[in-house]
This record gives sequence, structure tokens and C-alpha cells, in this order.
Amino acid sequence: MKQAIITFGLGLILSTIFTALLIPFLKKNHIGQNIREVGPKHQQKAGTPTMGGMAFVPAIILAVLPFIGKYPAVIPVLAMTFGYGLIGMLDDGLKKKHGVNEGLKAWQKFGLQLIMTAFFCWWRMTRVDNPTMIRIPFVQTEVDLGWLYIPLLFLVVLGTDNGVNLTDGIDGLCSSVTAVVALFFTALSILYGTGTEPVTAAVCGALLGFLLFNTNPARIFMGDTGSLALGGFVASMALTLRQPFMLLICGIIYVCETLSVMIQVSYFKLTHGKRVFKMTPIHHTFEFYGWSEARIVIVFTVITAFFCALAYLGA
Amino acid sequence: MKQAIITFGLGLILSTIFTALLIPFLKKNHIGQNIREVGPKHQQKAGTPTMGGMAFVPAIILAVLPFIGKYPAVIPVLAMTFGYGLIGMLDDGLKKKHGVNEGLKAWQKFGLQLIMTAFFCWWRMTRVDNPTMIRIPFVQTEVDLGWLYIPLLFLVVLGTDNGVNLTDGIDGLCSSVTAVVALFFTALSILYGTGTEPVTAAVCGALLGFLLFNTNPARIFMGDTGSLALGGFVASMALTLRQPFMLLICGIIYVCETLSVMIQVSYFKLTHGKRVFKMTPIHHTFEFYGWSEARIVIVFTVITAFFCALAYLGA
Repeated sequence: MKQAIITFGLGLILSTIFTALLIPFLKKNHIGQNIREVGPKHQQKAGTPTMGGMAFVPAIILAVLPFIGKYPAVIPVLAMTFGYGLIGMLDDGLKKKHGVNEGLKAWQKFGLQLIMTAFFCWWRMTRVDNPTMIRIPFVQTEVDLGWLYIPLLFLVVLGTDNGVNLTDGIDGLCSSVTAVVALFFTALSILYGTGTEPVTAAVCGALLGFLLFNTNPARIFMGDTGSLALGGFVASMALTLRQPFMLLICGIIYVCETLSVMIQVSYFKLTHGKRVFKMTPIHHTFEFYGWSEARIVIVFTVITAFFCALAYLGA
Repeated sequence: MKQAIITFGLGLILSTIFTALLIPFLKKNHIGQNIREVGPKHQQKAGTPTMGGMAFVPAIILAVLPFIGKYPAVIPVLAMTFGYGLIGMLDDGLKKKHGVNEGLKAWQKFGLQLIMTAFFCWWRMTRVDNPTMIRIPFVQTEVDLGWLYIPLLFLVVLGTDNGVNLTDGIDGLCSSVTAVVALFFTALSILYGTGTEPVTAAVCGALLGFLLFNTNPARIFMGDTGSLALGGFVASMALTLRQPFMLLICGIIYVCETLSVMIQVSYFKLTHGKRVFKMTPIHHTFEFYGWSEARIVIVFTVITAFFCALAYLGA
């Protein structure tokens, strides 16, 4: 517990310092957001520095570094956070350099994600006892999935990463929601004794530090660098806790954001042009109905806190 | 722990419902804020319903009610929360009815606070083992204060209540900061085994529910009804945890708000009209320098989270 408190504090301080230093650097190098969203509000955001993940991901790693020896379970989680962050950074970087449509090609990005996930899968299968055992929320039993665990692991990682990525579209939304999820994972780490609380607490602290600059009006966005890294973190933590299905509860916002897009796209195709929601991901629908960004953030964050509490009852 | 999760969820749901119901009721009865602040920004807030504490204080009590039998330690904390809330409500109510300067007279308010605090003091002295023992943060010892405990208790309660009251001046500030403090008290309750986690978790949940309506632009303010109740809660919890001095760390924002006013007033009197800060309580100085309300709230809340983490290391 004390280690978690220390990494929380370190993550917060380092992330605050790194973000404060990164903003002028990005501005100087004209690494600003290309805004493709509709509406006058979002046009104002053009030019706000992005790739903020470059500040909080190193903050997380440095905060946890002194504890790696005593808590080896944090290594695969850190690797997934860093690896997915790197994929996001590559994509963000290429887009900045060559234009919006010149990032990683879909198959390149997917390929890199598969390689990273395969590495994580290999780690779990070879270094963890009973790797294919998972917990079922609210039922006090564990289930051995056997080989079915492997496709589930890939599905969880790729689905979560997509969901976290979609959640990043309003100032401070993804960082606030994920900070609460990280706090919840800290409680679960301690409850289950998985020895991962230094990394979950560091993520929570680092996101709070980043939030100081990321709340509306945002002075920096996290970019795919940040949101993919957080996706890698959330997915690998859920799997390390053997609670992949609990993600559907504590990650309710990621789930709803993903479902909103899936429903919208399917319905649009089926009806040749009709829509279910005004705009997706779903947070834009609330914006459309006049909610301020701050209100959407607080409502989504409180919903996450509520569902995390609910999930804890089933832990 | 499970009880804390349940009261958290109940507090959140009940507070959300009660606040949603209270807003139209207050509007209908023209119970809006009288704005005495300087500046055009704050004039816009005239007429926003106040006395929001009338929603979250009952939510806290109802959420904890089913657990009172098993957790009798929550009773004096609930009593202080409710009692101080009642004093605030009386003051708010008289002001609404008869005008700003016709609330409780200073001596009446102070007298009621003293009576309430005396009741709490009596409870601790007669029903708690070694009531005058307190913990000293960062030093792993307990100290028996003897009769000195009594003036300290009064000082802590009255000082905290004032500090929490001063913190309430920006949309969502007092509720956010106190939600974090309540979460911290939940961790301490579990660590020390004081059996108060149902009430601290309920306060945290109820404040998150209230925040849904209280973040900028606020649709309701908590009023003295809310801020005095929270002051009673924070002070009585710190004393129940035997950690009055830890309030100086986890309640850093309350302390700074109070000190800013004390410094300002003293300096003003000494120099016959000079000021140290642009405006106090200190959050108004940040507003003066152009910070948005949302930014002040997030910065003060993250500072509170950091100092709570720090305080936990000394628990």
C-alpha cells in the first residue's frame, strides 16, 4: 500500500513537470491537433498541442522503476502501456509529418498491435501459474478457459484499446475516466495480491497530473500516443487481475462509446443512411444536445466511479 | 469494505435523485443565491438555487441508516454532519426569508455551533475508550493530551468548519475537494478499524452525485447548509480517527483558504488598507488572474489528492 502511495505521488509530480515542459516544446515544433470534427466549437481547438501521452507514459515508467525488483508483476503491464504508446506515437508522428492520411496504414497498425499483444500473451502463458484461469465477477469461482483464453486475450486487448481510444474526444474525458479505473485496479491489486498496485497507482497519479493541463479548455491533448497507451494499460491490468469480464462493468464508458459507434455504423449501413444517434462516439451526442464538455466529463466520470464500486462488490 | 461500497453507491444514487428533485423545488420557491461577489462573472450566478446541502445531507443519512446497528461509530459523525447542516440551513433560510443581513446573528450561530460541538465532545469523552489519546502523523506514537484535548477539539471543529465554508466559493470546488478527503478518510477508517467507513464512503458518493449538478456552470450551490455540514463531517471524522493534526495535511486547501483570509485581514488592518492577495479566499485570486473555475477546481482537487496520499504515508 505504501509503495502504491509513493508511485501515485511520483507519477503525479513527474507527469505535471513533464506535461508542463512538453507543451512549449510541442508548440515550438508545431505539433498541434488537426481537427476533423464538425462544429465551430471543435475548430477552436485546432493547433492545441497533442501527443500528451509523451509526458505521462514516461512519468508512469519512471515512477514505477524503483519498485520493479520487488514487484515483477508490473513489468508486462508497463510493457503493454509503453508498447501501445509507442504504436500511437508512431501513428501520431507520421500524421504530423506527412499529413492526416499518411499515418500508419490500418494493417500496419493492426500488425504492430498484434505483435505487442502476442508478446503479452507469451509472457502470461510462460511466466504465470495457471495463466488460463479467470475469475467470473459476482460468482465466487474461477474458470479454466484452456486454449480459449488466447482468443479472449486478443479480443480483450484489441477491444479495450479501441474503446479507450474512442473515449478520447472531449477535454479531460479519457484521462478522468481512466484515472478512476486505475484507482479501482489499485484496490483490486491489493485485494487479490497481484503485486501490481505500484503501476496502477502511478497511472492514477500521472493522469491527475496530466488533467491539470487537459481539462477544458485543454492546453494539451493526449493523442493516440496517450489513448493507445492507456488502452494497453487497462487491458493488460484486467487480464493480470484475471478479471477480463469485469472490464464490461468498470469500463462501462469504453463499452458504451464502442457500442454507440458499432450501432451507428451498422444501422447506417442497414438503412442506407439513417442514424440512431446524432453523433458518435456517444459523448458527441451529449455535446450536440448542449451539454458543456465539463458536464459530460463529470457525468461520465461519476458513472465510472459508480460502476467501479458495483464491480468491486463482485470482485 | 463491502459496506463502504454499498453506502458509496447508495449515497451517489440518492444524492443524484434528491438534487434533481430539489432544483425545481427551490426554483419554484425562489430560493436563489444572493451574489455579493465583485465581478461580472459572479453576477450571472444570481438566482441559481442554493441550499443544495438539503439534498446530499439526507442522502448521506439514508445511505448509512441500514448500517448504524453494526457500525455505531458512525452515529456521532452523522450527528455532527446533520447538526451543522441544520445550523447552516437555519442561517440560509433566514437570509432567504428576511434578506442577506437578517440571517442568524454571529453570536447565535457561534452559540449553536458550540452547543453542537459540546454534544460531540461529551459523546467522545463518555463513550470512547481513551478519548484524549491522539495520533501524531509520521511519528508512530500516540499522545495522551489529557484535559488539553477539550480545547483542541473545539478549535479543530470550529476551525475546520470555517475552512470548509470558505472553500465553498467556486462551482464544484468544495464538493470535489471534500469528496477526495472523504475517500481518504475511508482508507484511514479501514486502516485503523474505526468502523466509520460507511459514513465516509456515503459522503464521497453523495458529493459525486451532487457534483453532477454543481460543476461549472453550477445548476445548484450547496449553501451554508452544505458547507457547514461538510465541515462538521470533516472535523468529527478527523477526531474520530484521532488524527486532528493530519487535517493540516489532507485538508491543505481548507488551511490555505483560511490562512489567506487571516493574512489578508491582518495585513489590511496593520497597514491601514494594503492587501497581500488580489482577493480572498485565495481561489478568487486565481480567478482574478484569469484561471477558469474548472481549472481552479481541478488544480485544488489534485493538490488535495496529492496531500492525502502524503498524509497516508504518515498514518
